[in-house]
Amino acid sequence: MVTWNNLDTLTAFQELEKVGRVNLVEAMAGENGAARVKNYSVPMAEGFVYNYAAKQVDDKVLEALVKLAGEAQLSEKFKAVYNGEVVNTGENRLVLHHMTRGQLGDAVQADGVDKRKFYEEQQQKIADFANKVHAGEITNAAGEKFTTVVQIGIGGSDLGPRAIYLALENWAKKNNTFKMEAKFISNVDPDDAAAVLNSIDVAHSLFVLVSKSGTTLETLTNESFVKDALKSAGLDASKHMVAVTSETSPLAKSDDYLAAFFMDDYIGGRYSSSSAVGGAVLSLAFGPEVFAQFLEGAHEEDKLSLNEDVLKNPAMLDALIGVYERNVLGYPCTAVLPYSQALNRFPAHLQQLDMESNGKSVNRFGERINYPTGPVIFGEPGTNGQHSFYQLLHQGTDIVPLQFVGFKNSQIGTDVVIQGSTSQQKLCANVAAQIVAFACGKSDENKNKNFEGGRPSSIIIGDQVTPKTIGALLAHFENKVMFQGFLWNINSFDQEGVQLGKVLAKRVLAHETDGALKEFSDLLNI
Amino acid sequence: MVTWNNLDTLTAFQELEKVGRVNLVEAMAGENGAARVKNYSVPMAEGFVYNYAAKQVDDKVLEALVKLAGEAQLSEKFKAVYNGEVVNTGENRLVLHHMTRGQLGDAVQADGVDKRKFYEEQQQKIADFANKVHAGEITNAAGEKFTTVVQIGIGGSDLGPRAIYLALENWAKKNNTFKMEAKFISNVDPDDAAAVLNSIDVAHSLFVLVSKSGTTLETLTNESFVKDALKSAGLDASKHMVAVTSETSPLAKSDDYLAAFFMDDYIGGRYSSSSAVGGAVLSLAFGPEVFAQFLEGAHEEDKLSLNEDVLKNPAMLDALIGVYERNVLGYPCTAVLPYSQALNRFPAHLQQLDMESNGKSVNRFGERINYPTGPVIFGEPGTNGQHSFYQLLHQGTDIVPLQFVGFKNSQIGTDVVIQGSTSQQKLCANVAAQIVAFACGKSDENKNKNFEGGRPSSIIIGDQVTPKTIGALLAHFENKVMFQGFLWNINSFDQEGVQLGKVLAKRVLAHETDGALKEFSDLLNI
Repeated sequence: MVTWNNLDTLTAFQELEKVGRVNLVEAMAGENGAARVKNYSVPMAEGFVYNYAAKQVDDKVLEALVKLAGEAQLSEKFKAVYNGEVVNTGENRLVLHHMTRGQLGDAVQADGVDKRKFYEEQQQKIADFANKVHAGEITNAAGEKFTTVVQIGIGGSDLGPRAIYLALENWAKKNNTFKMEAKFISNVDPDDAAAVLNSIDVAHSLFVLVSKSGTTLETLTNESFVKDALKSAGLDASKHMVAVTSETSPLAKSDDYLAAFFMDDYIGGRYSSSSAVGGAVLSLAFGPEVFAQFLEGAHEEDKLSLNEDVLKNPAMLDALIGVYERNVLGYPCTAVLPYSQALNRFPAHLQQLDMESNGKSVNRFGERINYPTGPVIFGEPGTNGQHSFYQLLHQGTDIVPLQFVGFKNSQIGTDVVIQGSTSQQKLCANVAAQIVAFACGKSDENKNKNFEGGRPSSIIIGDQVTPKTIGALLAHFENKVMFQGFLWNINSFDQEGVQLGKVLAKRVLAHETDGALKEFSDLLNI
Repeated sequence: MVTWNNLDTLTAFQELEKVGRVNLVEAMAGENGAARVKNYSVPMAEGFVYNYAAKQVDDKVLEALVKLAGEAQLSEKFKAVYNGEVVNTGENRLVLHHMTRGQLGDAVQADGVDKRKFYEEQQQKIADFANKVHAGEITNAAGEKFTTVVQIGIGGSDLGPRAIYLALENWAKKNNTFKMEAKFISNVDPDDAAAVLNSIDVAHSLFVLVSKSGTTLETLTNESFVKDALKSAGLDASKHMVAVTSETSPLAKSDDYLAAFFMDDYIGGRYSSSSAVGGAVLSLAFGPEVFAQFLEGAHEEDKLSLNEDVLKNPAMLDALIGVYERNVLGYPCTAVLPYSQALNRFPAHLQQLDMESNGKSVNRFGERINYPTGPVIFGEPGTNGQHSFYQLLHQGTDIVPLQFVGFKNSQIGTDVVIQGSTSQQKLCANVAAQIVAFACGKSDENKNKNFEGGRPSSIIIGDQVTPKTIGALLAHFENKVMFQGFLWNINSFDQEGVQLGKVLAKRVLAHETDGALKEFSDLLNI
């Protein structure tokens, strides 16, 4: 029987608060530090390792975290999710994004169908469509092949698919699975759509309109933008567009689209990369097999999240350590730092995933809670960040916990040896060096050159950014965020905080404003 | 006589702490809110307005901030900067980035020359070179025009120039000043250089190598990467490369470059966009006249920062409010939210500018300080962010002060009318709506749909992203950061925090490691 309780009511949390703090500088020194690196490490799927040696934990803290996981029933709650209980209570919905990549437990019936079958059917429909496009069986009106795919979507319909596309673009080119260039239009700023349209050959472009509800303002506006451009080019828009939406949306059965692929209300936007939302654009760009590999990697990682042994469940452990940092140690931010240019926009996706899921002040029963929830998430790839905001991370007055990601191999494989090492070795040497610099610091009599250390980080290390590994990485963070939501006793699957702005923006456009809103509207010439 | 004192020793700061807090929900309601929008507004250069109506200030707080500005001698300290005193005491250097765009005070002699003349000469040298490239007088060995310019640099040699290039790319195309496409290689990750090289025609590409010291590891490594590619293509690398560096660097007089353009030790990397670091790539991409306009905008804004009347000095006021939020109200982060797709990477540049400058724990005399300094800075363009991390900003447990930027007009001018409004109007309506939503909130009996409000923001409103306005915007933030550094009594112009990581990375590459560093190196296969 699952019970949902606030974090601060749990005995294990109160005990956790009393456990002695770890002095990271001391813990990470010498042979003890070496032993930590060996011991505080847990395998993930697809060859990844999650290493938390440089986190402010020791065996006592870990023991308390294990107890907390048990009392908070993290495994049972995850089971409730994948077995199809109504975990998104605010919106009265199931939470089924795991099922887009595999079935972890019971079959789930909803809307009169088996949901796993439904997601598989959509994946197959997309694969068939993509194969026909690649084979030149589905073409533009002139019978010519499509060369470019343009995703029109915002938020969850943009950030995840875009981050994954960028992560795999060079891999696909190297591995001869690159089929079509992908572009993305998201912002309602007309310059976004106009710039993308100026950069492509519309006659050979296929547009994927993505909106679950079929009512997202930005997306419908950008659709019109694109339709205007197609019309101006003398083209039939309906021969250049497909829709990804829910079966109940106005887009589902419209003649305006070559095809429609479906997601449903049980897939939140920020969790939708493994549904048709990511599936259409990524299958078109790289081929359905590549998308299938991505799903496989995600499913493998999901299976690890089932492990009831916390110390063998990297997402759960990562979640627990994050809550310890947020609610006991009091750190308000977390930086995500992938040492891979391919993961350029991965931090922006994680920023949405985490902040939109867990940036909440009420528990799942709508009661105000008295402890901090989701942190601010930000990040840029290393080594770039080292020459930018790392100054504050090393010597600033606040401590920011860090989440590194590193890969042993590059994607393209072209490299140079300078001063006895390759660029890839330099990249890896830098991330290793940073972990130790942050944790251990270095004393200097000149206080301006002094590093206090004690700045905690973890690292996820993998072999290479591939479809499988990017799937596993994404699933790790999705599950981490889910487990943290359980710990905070919040609903990580709704987003009521985005509503008020929409309502007020409509009022501005209807010129139904007064007070400050009217004045700001005037200042902006609306 | 300028005296440098810690913030917490200033009488005005102690008084500021005692001033009553503003209830933003009440302050921004009704006619009072409307009056605030009208009154709490100050003109900037190039048609911008800085509006702080939705900040947690009132006349009493502002009065205290004005006193603080006086006691902290902000104007006098700025004067010390532009008149060439050694303000960067840690490195024993002048701070002259303002002089790259104009002279605000006395002539400054250093290294035996008039520095304003020196910067003007470099700008002119770049202009002549760029004009010759555009005219086909400087070409590749085959006598063909260069079509692409590739900046090789990291940190300050990358983020600012890249953000400005992206900000002006569509403007230049629209206004027929687009000369050459620009690309950027920054990361030591070999996939960064390899992907850029795969995407360009090297035979028609000109590479700008940017490193003040001429010793930046990433940049020299990427230079070799590029030279290999040129050689493989049967090209003479020295006919495809220019250097931007200091006169004392090893690159300055090398035959490996077609030309060398100079900056000096008085321009910090993160303040170097208006020096040759930004000048070369931007003049090549858009023409020297466009770069000159950018400098003009920056200089106009610099002149406003001279104003001793705080309420007419937007950068100083912005700085003071930020310190109030950080040190009195206790907010640890600030989000930068430009409602313009063109300003896509502007937040990443400001992140460096701010966090590298003011992420310090010792004062300018190397003494440990006991108050928070620079906040964590992050951001993405709106409306994209609204569908991402705004959930936390609206309903999260922590308050994050917000810095909006909005423009009345788009750059490209292509737009559509949907439901009675253009995309540009929708964009502007959204930013107006967000300010009010954050400040005023909205009560709801369902606590999950409740918005507490009281979340402070300011907005900078302009006409359009142009070379002049982007210059003014950049100068505003540079000067804000400088004034905040004065208030915190820190040196905003060095970055000792980046050193330790470099030292340890070298040790890893030399295999001179033990303990945790050795173990992490092993895990990463180095």
